[in-house]
This record gives sequence, C-alpha cells and structure tokens, in this order.
Amino acid sequence: MSLKISSRIKLAARSEGQENTLVRIGDAVIGGEKVAVIAGPCSVESKEQLMEAARAVKAAGASMLRGGAFKPRTLPYSFQGLGVEGLKILAEAREETGLPVVTEVMAPEEVAVVEEYADVLQIGARNVQNYPLLKRVGQAGKPVLLKRGMASTIEEWLSAAEYVLHGGNPDVILCERGIRSYGKLTRFTLDLAAVPLLKEVSHLPVVVDPSHGTGIRSLVKPMSKAAVAAGADGLIVEVHPNPEEAMSDGAQSLRPEEFKILMGELGPVARSVGRRL
Amino acid sequence: MSLKISSRIKLAARSEGQENTLVRIGDAVIGGEKVAVIAGPCSVESKEQLMEAARAVKAAGASMLRGGAFKPRTLPYSFQGLGVEGLKILAEAREETGLPVVTEVMAPEEVAVVEEYADVLQIGARNVQNYPLLKRVGQAGKPVLLKRGMASTIEEWLSAAEYVLHGGNPDVILCERGIRSYGKLTRFTLDLAAVPLLKEVSHLPVVVDPSHGTGIRSLVKPMSKAAVAAGADGLIVEVHPNPEEAMSDGAQSLRPEEFKILMGELGPVARSVGRRL
Amino acid sequence: MSLKISSRIKLAARSEGQENTLVRIGDAVIGGEKVAVIAGPCSVESKEQLMEAARAVKAAGASMLRGGAFKPRTLPYSFQGLGVEGLKILAEAREETGLPVVTEVMAPEEVAVVEEYADVLQIGARNVQNYPLLKRVGQAGKPVLLKRGMASTIEEWLSAAEYVLHGGNPDVILCERGIRSYGKLTRFTLDLAAVPLLKEVSHLPVVVDPSHGTGIRSLVKPMSKAAVAAGADGLIVEVHPNPEEAMSDGAQSLRPEEFKILMGELGPVARSVGRRL
Amino acid sequence: MSLKISSRIKLAARSEGQENTLVRIGDAVIGGEKVAVIAGPCSVESKEQLMEAARAVKAAGASMLRGGAFKPRTLPYSFQGLGVEGLKILAEAREETGLPVVTEVMAPEEVAVVEEYADVLQIGARNVQNYPLLKRVGQAGKPVLLKRGMASTIEEWLSAAEYVLHGGNPDVILCERGIRSYGKLTRFTLDLAAVPLLKEVSHLPVVVDPSHGTGIRSLVKPMSKAAVAAGADGLIVEVHPNPEEAMSDGAQSLRPEEFKILMGELGPVARSVGRRL
Repeated sequence: MSLKISSRIKLAARSEGQENTLVRIGDAVIGGEKVAVIAGPCSVESKEQLMEAARAVKAAGASMLRGGAFKPRTLPYSFQGLGVEGLKILAEAREETGLPVVTEVMAPEEVAVVEEYADVLQIGARNVQNYPLLKRVGQAGKPVLLKRGMASTIEEWLSAAEYVLHGGNPDVILCERGIRSYGKLTRFTLDLAAVPLLKEVSHLPVVVDPSHGTGIRSLVKPMSKAAVAAGADGLIVEVHPNPEEAMSDGAQSLRPEEFKILMGELGPVARSVGRRL
Repeated sequence: MSLKISSRIKLAARSEGQENTLVRIGDAVIGGEKVAVIAGPCSVESKEQLMEAARAVKAAGASMLRGGAFKPRTLPYSFQGLGVEGLKILAEAREETGLPVVTEVMAPEEVAVVEEYADVLQIGARNVQNYPLLKRVGQAGKPVLLKRGMASTIEEWLSAAEYVLHGGNPDVILCERGIRSYGKLTRFTLDLAAVPLLKEVSHLPVVVDPSHGTGIRSLVKPMSKAAVAAGADGLIVEVHPNPEEAMSDGAQSLRPEEFKILMGELGPVARSVGRRL
Repeated sequence: MSLKISSRIKLAARSEGQENTLVRIGDAVIGGEKVAVIAGPCSVESKEQLMEAARAVKAAGASMLRGGAFKPRTLPYSFQGLGVEGLKILAEAREETGLPVVTEVMAPEEVAVVEEYADVLQIGARNVQNYPLLKRVGQAGKPVLLKRGMASTIEEWLSAAEYVLHGGNPDVILCERGIRSYGKLTRFTLDLAAVPLLKEVSHLPVVVDPSHGTGIRSLVKPMSKAAVAAGADGLIVEVHPNPEEAMSDGAQSLRPEEFKILMGELGPVARSVGRRL
Repeated sequence: MSLKISSRIKLAARSEGQENTLVRIGDAVIGGEKVAVIAGPCSVESKEQLMEAARAVKAAGASMLRGGAFKPRTLPYSFQGLGVEGLKILAEAREETGLPVVTEVMAPEEVAVVEEYADVLQIGARNVQNYPLLKRVGQAGKPVLLKRGMASTIEEWLSAAEYVLHGGNPDVILCERGIRSYGKLTRFTLDLAAVPLLKEVSHLPVVVDPSHGTGIRSLVKPMSKAAVAAGADGLIVEVHPNPEEAMSDGAQSLRPEEFKILMGELGPVARSVGRRL
C-alpha cells in the first residue's frame, strides 16, 4: 500500500517539496517546532469558571484557550451554551491572560459575531460536511480549526479543508478527535496514525484532541504524549476547574493540577522527537 | 438484550400504546397501509431531465418526486446544484404530475425559500447533527425527511428528530440510508434492522434509501423489496433518465424502465406483509 | 461503483453464465426455488430440550435442525457444550424427525467425529479465517455452512470458501450473520445487501441468520422476511422451548409458537419473490 | 465514562493494587522498565533471508526475533509458510544471534512442534477466538503473544487471554495490531488508546504491532514512537532485508537500515516516559 490521495484534492494536498503551512495566531504558531497546547473547558459556563480555567492553563504553559459558547448538544434539553455572552467572557479571558481564543461556530449566520470575539473558528466534528458553513468560514479573516467527522475518511476530511482553502482562507488546522468504531469502553477510537499520514499527504498543521478522542480522563495524559510522539503539531485538551460539576464532558476533563502535570511530562516527549513545548 | 432507548428522548419515543404518526403530504400519507415510493434524480440538472424523470416515476406509480437543488458535494469543484432555479423546476414538475416534491435544505437561511417551493424538507445525512438547521426546520410548516447520519446511532438519530419535534414541527419522517462500515464493495451498509427497531421504539414513520444505502444499481431492487418486507413505510429511490450522464450518483440510479419493473415487483412484496403500494 | 471481486478468487466466484450451486442434504436442497429454514436451539442442553425443539420446528415446517454441541464461548467459565454427547442427541432427533442436522465444528481434530453424526458442518464466525480448520473440512464428505466473520469483507469471506472448495469439497453454503459496527442497541448489524451481492458475484447458496444478526427476539421475524425478500436461499433461526432458561442466546431465541407464526408469515413473502417455503 | 470491565474476567483483570506481570523469555523481560523490540520478517522464506534479517535486527538492538513458519493467508494459493523447516531456521537464528524466537501457531496439533523450536507462541488476530487453540496453548510451557482480533472489543480480547491463563499458562503478552474500521488509506486503525486502557484494567504486558496496524512503511516509525509514548511494553516490527521481494507484507516491512534508524530514535522517546530501550 502506498499513500496516494485523490488528485481532485488540490489546495489541501502537499505538492512535491511543499513546506509545512504555519498558522499564526497572535504570538502562537501552529505547525512549527513548538507544540501548541490549546486548553480550557468544554463549555463556557460562567465568568468565574472560565477565568479560573484560563488562569490555570496559562500558568501551566498553554498556548491558547478553548471554550464553547455555541454548543452542539445531542438533545435539545441539554445546556446549549451561553452564546454571545460566552464569547464576551472568552474575550475577557484573552484580555487578562493574553491567550488567543478558540471557539466553535455552528451556523453561517453566526460566523460574523464569533469572528468578532474569537481568534480561531472551530468547526466541530458534526459540521465537517456542513458545506454552507465551510464556504462561509472560507471567507472569514480568522484561522479555522477543522475537526474530523466521526466517520470521515482522510480524503473527505481534506476535501472539507479544500472548501475553506478554496474560499480564500489559507489558515486551516486539522484536528483528529477520534472516529466511531465498535469499541464500548472509550467514547471514540483516536486514530493517531492519521497524524503522520496527514503530514505526508498534506501541508496543513495537525492537532489532536485526546479528550473527545477517548472520553476518559485517565487516558488523556498517555494519549497526549502519544500524539506528540506521532508528530502532532498541537493538542486541544479539556480542562475544568471542577469536572464533577461540569455542564458537559466532565468525565473527560482534566483538573488544573492534572493539566499541570501533563504539561510537565509532555516537554521531554516533545524534545525526544525534536520539538519543544 | 432488550430494546430500551434513553428516557431523555421524549417526543420521538413511542409511549406505551401510542399509535403510529401519519405524515400527510398532499394526497400522500406516510406511515399508513400504503407504502410510499419517492423517486427521482439525485440532482435537478435541467428542466428537461427533471420533467422526463418526473413523468416516468409518476407513470410507474411513485407517490412523490425527489430531486436535489442545493447539493452537498464532497469537493467544492463538483456541481453544486441549480439552487433556486432547481426549486422552480421541481415546482413545475409538481404542477404537471401532481407529485409532491422532496428536496434537501442545507442551511438555516435557505429554509424559507425551500419551503416556498417544496412539500417536504430533506435533511441530509451530513446535517443530521446540524443543530441550528434542525431548530430552524422545527419551525417550518412542512414535513421533514430526516436522513440518518453515516455514523449515527439510533439514539442520536432520534435525538435529532427530537430537535425538530421540540421546535414545534410534528411531521418527521426518518430515513435509513446506510451507515459507514468497513465494506469496500458497497458505498454504505444498509442497516435494515433499524426499520423494525425504530417502529418499536418510535411512533415516527420510517423510509429506506436503497440507492445511497448500497451505491450499486443492481442492489437497489432486492434491497427495496427487503426494506418493504422489513416493515418500511416507504422508499426513496434515485431514478435518472440517463444514468451514464448523471451529474451525481449515476452508478446507483435506476433507469426509468428499471424503476417500472421494480414498482411492478414491489406490489406483491407489500401485499405479502399486509401493505399495498 | 461496480461489483468486481478479486480475480484471485476462482472457485467461489461466479464465472460468466454459471448456474447456482445447489447443495443437497438428504431431501433438502439449498439454493433452489424452496427457501430452506434451519431452526433449533443455540446449544444442545439436554435430550428433552433438543427433542422438544426438534419436534416443534419440524411441525412448523423447518427443513433442517440446528443445535450446538461444541460451543465457542467468550469466557472459559461459560457452558462449553455437551460435546459428543450433544452430537448423539442431535442424531437421535434426526432419527425421530427426519430433519438433517447442522452443527458447529471448531477444531480440525473434531471434524471426524462431527462428520460421523451431523449432516452439515458449521464453521462459526470466529473461525472464518481458521485455515487449518477450513483445509480440514475441505476434505470432509459433508457440506459446510460457512458463517461470515464479524469483520469479514465479502472478498475475505469468499476467500475462506475458496479454501474449502480448493480442498475438494464443493458444497459450501455461505451464511450472513451480522457484522460488527458501532451500533449499541443490536448485537450486530445484519448486512442484507450481502445477499444479492453474493448472488451476483458467486454461485454459492446464501442463507441468513437473523438471530445472531440482531440479537433481539422481536427483530427476528421482520429480518427473516427481509432476508427472503432480498433473495436469501435460506434462514437459520434460533428456537428454544424456553428461552428464559436457555444456557446461551436466550434473548434472541424464538419460542416454538413464535417460530410457527414466523413460518406462517414467511410463505407469502417467499411467494412474492418467486420462491416457496 | 469510567473504565470498568466485566467482573466475569478474573485472571486477566488487574485486581486492586496488583503488580504488573513480567513475562521472562531467556534474558528478555516484557513488562518491565525496558521496552522490548521484537523484529524480523513476516515469513521465514529461506535460511539466507532469515539469517540476514536476524543479524540486522540483533545489531540494531532488538530483543527478540519474529518470523512466520505457519502462515495464515487469505487465499489458499498464497505462500503458506515453510512449516517445520521454517521453525528449524528460526532455531538456527536463535543459536547464532542469541535472540529468543516468536512465531505463530495456528492449530492445536501444531502446538507441540512449535513449542519445541520457539520461545514464544504467537496467536494471530484471526485465531483470537479459536478456543480449542487457546485451551491448548494454555497448557503449553512457553509464553503466549496474543494478538487482538480485527474486531475484538477489549473485553473479548481479555476473555481470550482468560482462556490461556485459566488453562494454567500465566505468561500472556497482549498485542494491539489495529482494528478494522472504515478507513481506506491504511490497512487497519491502530488503537493506541488500548495500551493505557489495558495497563489500567489488566496486569498483563502490552505490545504494539505498528506494521500490521498501519500497513504502510512510512507510518511504522512515528507509530512506534507513539506506542512507546502511550506506555507500550514493547513493539513487534516487520523487518525484511529486501521488502520489494518479500513473499508477504512487503509494503509494511522496514529495511534493515530503516529499522536501525527507528531504534536510534526510539531510545529518547522511551527515556522521555521513564523507560529505556
């Protein structure tokens, strides 16, 4: 077997000899020597919660802050996020910590407001083939973090990136977040081989989400190390000041002290593969 | 094992003794004794093509006409559909044939215009967890045909239906269209057991798409019969006057004469399970 | 997409114009106009249990009797089957009812004794790529019912059949029994499209196991009908006089009266597709 | 979600406070601080080929030699292995290099002869639920390397280990080798999260096979590093003196010089997680 992708994927594919794309967000760069760690809670729940999380991840050495304001929830009865209020809280946290903010956008008509407050527009796994949304963020002025769909092939995922690039936005970060398989003990199956595979066939940076990718707190640390060893350009990790009371994804969120330990242990792994944290 | 779904799914679940929901579209009823057959091309390509398809499926006994005007395509370089022009052609075909029209809507802001022309709003597999879109069609005045996502569990799919029902739209038709599995000879794996399973745990009507579910023309006829035998309330079948020249899904589209034969052979199968065509 | 299988599969592939293979077992024929129904308990538990099941399935019109004597069980602590004692009970049941007997064989060195008592040697899903076993039954004088592996592709499955045919045994019956997918409500995903697909690319008869394929009693009847409508040459159905007390697979076993109803309802479905029961 | 496995799995489960099991093979220990690397060709093809591979992997620092004498091949027309002749060549290579030998056994009646020549009995993915074989190696005097089945859940895999342990053989090494999923670019999906998960719920050592797990040579190095970073106790890597002419698995086999580079780069990764090579 050899790694050949469809020749119809043009902008997202690595052409012969093409350099890695570096995505710059404030002072952070994704795709370079430094492994970028994006951390924060699944949802912005309150100003207090977000600020506490932001300070903790900053102190531990994170490069960016994550937090959801518009939340894609399986049922309409679940907490749907704080919306614009959540975006404002994220912007305040950036103000205080200096950390650029990554947050999800779910509909074309929300792009303008999310772009106003956020530094990176996240397209969630459920929207990887939401073409009107992909076209819209292709016209945005901010980088896009494009999660893999739960059942996306590598080529479908790169084709989704192609929509954004074709729309005129050159800054796409791919995010492996686990695929659906038959396993019952973990939430998804984290497909880490996608990392070196993508680095070979595409020039785009690749980050890994070990939190959604496993759904289990105790697996986040080893899988973060594995992702970096596999060549990931960054991680996106859920951290919550109080996971037991989280309004979403508590079971997979690290506590601030666990995140600090993770960051401490990640450095040597990054250096062992010629990167740094 | 027993068939128990999450108690958080309320409106889409069948409560004890609850009758089947019947969805009425013009003269057609989905969920009753008669098996509804929705047929037509993948994409509306031109007035001529659509009219020819519409007349053929009408003559063969179809209950409704399908055809895509807004098309979700894997790559931005593929034909993206005729848009509003396609909707107008569909409305003309309804005018002439009397067949109600089913067509896909992909973005919240397109719902109003699609609703103006179409009789049923289709939510495609790629949008089954596009919550802003589900909320928007929950406020529409037309029934919604909700395709299963490529990797949706039954509960996730019913939860998507819950969004539409919770929004105030009681007319949801579920459509099994194949799930992603490891097979390489077919496009998807048609999960026909979902049909009797859904009839047991939900009151909503269930139709089957054997065209996308297999991706192979020669399998459409046997799988249509199997779907009806399994208890499906309807089928949605791709028919194209000239599959070799189709702009999308040609390999899985029936020719008009093949569709006519299918309709002829489906009648006895429907009657064998106490239904009619 | 078109249905092309590897040209390295020779004996199991249908060559141009090749007729269906008919497998004859006593008076029964698999692959002809008549749909063969193989029924009986998962395990032979006692003479009384097996005899009661055998009489019931015979009375309802079954063509053959199934029952496991050597049982592949996930854990060593589970009931492992009665072994040769079970084979003798099966032979007695054949004596009384006239029904040919299908039973599983798990190891090359057991083939001789199983062949002595049984009419059809079943290779279970877990052994579909147990090549020493396939080679051994390729030298047996009895037909082989070859279940699909939980994750077998069509080509891998036909390649397993190729081992048996290549060994000199021309009588292979393929049995679709569900594949592993991400679903959580059913035990497996019954891949009924495999039936018409196999009928197209192979000359071998194909039967369906709706009991293992779903794992849920209430789904066995509709999926049996669907299998026949899809073109299956037969069914293999678990029937137990008292499913609540079954030593294995109780949740998916039909009671004798349920099986009788199934047989009554299957006749019209078979006739609707030009077959008979 | 929390990591709880069935309480029916007793011997393979880690009881509270239980230490890691160390499996000793000659001078090698699997499960301790040192990461064991097992390397060699897929098949023993000739004395020259095996000796060249053995010397190369020894020189690069491998702990053990792998090589198949009895080969499970999808089709009967493929090279089936040299059988006992291959075992003898493996024993000669051990003689010369001092490397213990790991080789596959496929049938109960072959266990005695394989045990005579080999140091570790490998049970392949296709035989993970071949219970007569598992029972037989449970009585063997040599350790067992138990590959995960292509569609094994963690619990099914541990249940297979339970058969060996229950048979009286305490030395079981689990080997993650990729599971079947829908991806088309790689041969399997390597489930690295299984490594820390197993270390948590079981006391048995866990090794990873990045060669079968990806099927692609260029992915073997990054996934080897990722496996070690995830906490694997060892690796099993295919190395062939001349992959282009290999009789099996050439596309995923490393050349000797590539293996040497891999070993050089693995050391720092192992040390970064508190292990050594």
